[in-house]
Amino acid sequence: MKEKLFIIKIGGNVINDPTLLKNFLSDFYKIKGKKILIHGGGKLLDQLAASLNIPQNMINGRRVTDAESLKLASMVYAGYINKNLVSQLQLHGCNAIGLTGADGNILKAKKRNSEPIDFGFVGDCSIEDVNQSLLKDLLHSNLCPVFCSLTHDGQGQLLNTNADTITSVLAMAMKNHFDVDVIYCFEKSGLLRDKENEHSRIEKINRHEIHSMLQESLISDGMIPKIQNIAALLDAGISTVRLVHAAEILAAIQNSKNIGTLFYAA
Amino acid sequence: MKEKLFIIKIGGNVINDPTLLKNFLSDFYKIKGKKILIHGGGKLLDQLAASLNIPQNMINGRRVTDAESLKLASMVYAGYINKNLVSQLQLHGCNAIGLTGADGNILKAKKRNSEPIDFGFVGDCSIEDVNQSLLKDLLHSNLCPVFCSLTHDGQGQLLNTNADTITSVLAMAMKNHFDVDVIYCFEKSGLLRDKENEHSRIEKINRHEIHSMLQESLISDGMIPKIQNIAALLDAGISTVRLVHAAEILAAIQNSKNIGTLFYAA
Repeated sequence: MKEKLFIIKIGGNVINDPTLLKNFLSDFYKIKGKKILIHGGGKLLDQLAASLNIPQNMINGRRVTDAESLKLASMVYAGYINKNLVSQLQLHGCNAIGLTGADGNILKAKKRNSEPIDFGFVGDCSIEDVNQSLLKDLLHSNLCPVFCSLTHDGQGQLLNTNADTITSVLAMAMKNHFDVDVIYCFEKSGLLRDKENEHSRIEKINRHEIHSMLQESLISDGMIPKIQNIAALLDAGISTVRLVHAAEILAAIQNSKNIGTLFYAA
Repeated sequence: MKEKLFIIKIGGNVINDPTLLKNFLSDFYKIKGKKILIHGGGKLLDQLAASLNIPQNMINGRRVTDAESLKLASMVYAGYINKNLVSQLQLHGCNAIGLTGADGNILKAKKRNSEPIDFGFVGDCSIEDVNQSLLKDLLHSNLCPVFCSLTHDGQGQLLNTNADTITSVLAMAMKNHFDVDVIYCFEKSGLLRDKENEHSRIEKINRHEIHSMLQESLISDGMIPKIQNIAALLDAGISTVRLVHAAEILAAIQNSKNIGTLFYAA
């Protein structure tokens, strides 16, 4: 039987809420066994950009990462947020190690084609881009990798990569080595039928229903990449993925019944 | 015979000079065998602080690291500079991994006493604070650790620690495991008798002469911590330490005669 590996993503609204984040980290360290944490931090990047009067260009709700924005991303994601998460986890005795994809060449990406839309220094990655050997070594050394949403192209260029995508790619790469349990944590109770109504949470949904919801545009803007990545995980043979409120991470792991939304393959 | 380990520090004026830095990195990757790179980056921190109108308080030429300055340090040192160095080294095929002391708990420090001068979130470290086991593991995995000048107290607090000090502490910790070769690289040709005159370079100087120069205040302000750390290395049993121009790193390694300043124990 393969060893369990928890792969947990925390959303930007969790990072931006000091109390929620503190409680999440204090819960996270209690999760026994091997684990990986992934984070972005777009809202803090927006705040720094505003303070520096560096305009942020968004297309269809997605950031255009020009050279200045990439510099800010390296500061905010890989520096401020990542190192604060790592030092906070160390306080709890969790031996975290912060990583971009460039560190140890652990996750490469390919700069996205500038057609039809030029998103700038944005990278897309797949399973083949994961340095599985190093990631396994770190996990077997009882380190907890903390990935921020930066990768590199191997040619000296850092790239901004969606943290939900990094989560799904790492999970797919590790599924042959571990019994992976993928959990997306954010500031809502789960996938909502009506995004304005916290009581409209979907408890369970299978792969086909997810694809239908995506096709029928029943998923709202900000949730689309997350749900697409969850669908990709199920398509790739991960049996279940969960989407839960960050405050419910321990409850979700200890007893997943009626916590968040359970996405399942069949 | 122990394996060679190069421990190389680059100064802030090297980081701030794109051409010098590019050439340095292209030379650095050519250094065969195990190696560690250490950097600070105070000048880029000053620039960011000025852009954000965050005043920097200096006492005796040393930064007072208040909470805001520490946030900037995490952005500039651990984020922007560290990750750009790592991705540039990856371009050259050097498998760099960027680290603060918090990552993998690799280097702890103790917050400096606020008496007689309160320098804020500044940490001092010694050999006992180095996670030697992890550092050796990384080196034996053929990774090249790239340390920025941040440590942590193990209690959730990041601390700003002088990069020259980190260099000397890492060298002292690794000297039982490797044949360490410590090289401080900066923008001058070596230790100068007259800091205004590049032709006044001291070619060789022994431990006793260094201590005399320090006692007689013959070392100028910015050089004091560097020379103190070099003296500490010799006192701790490192046989030689070199201080060279960043453009001369390969020449120094291949043929140390008449390059930079050679500090030797006896």
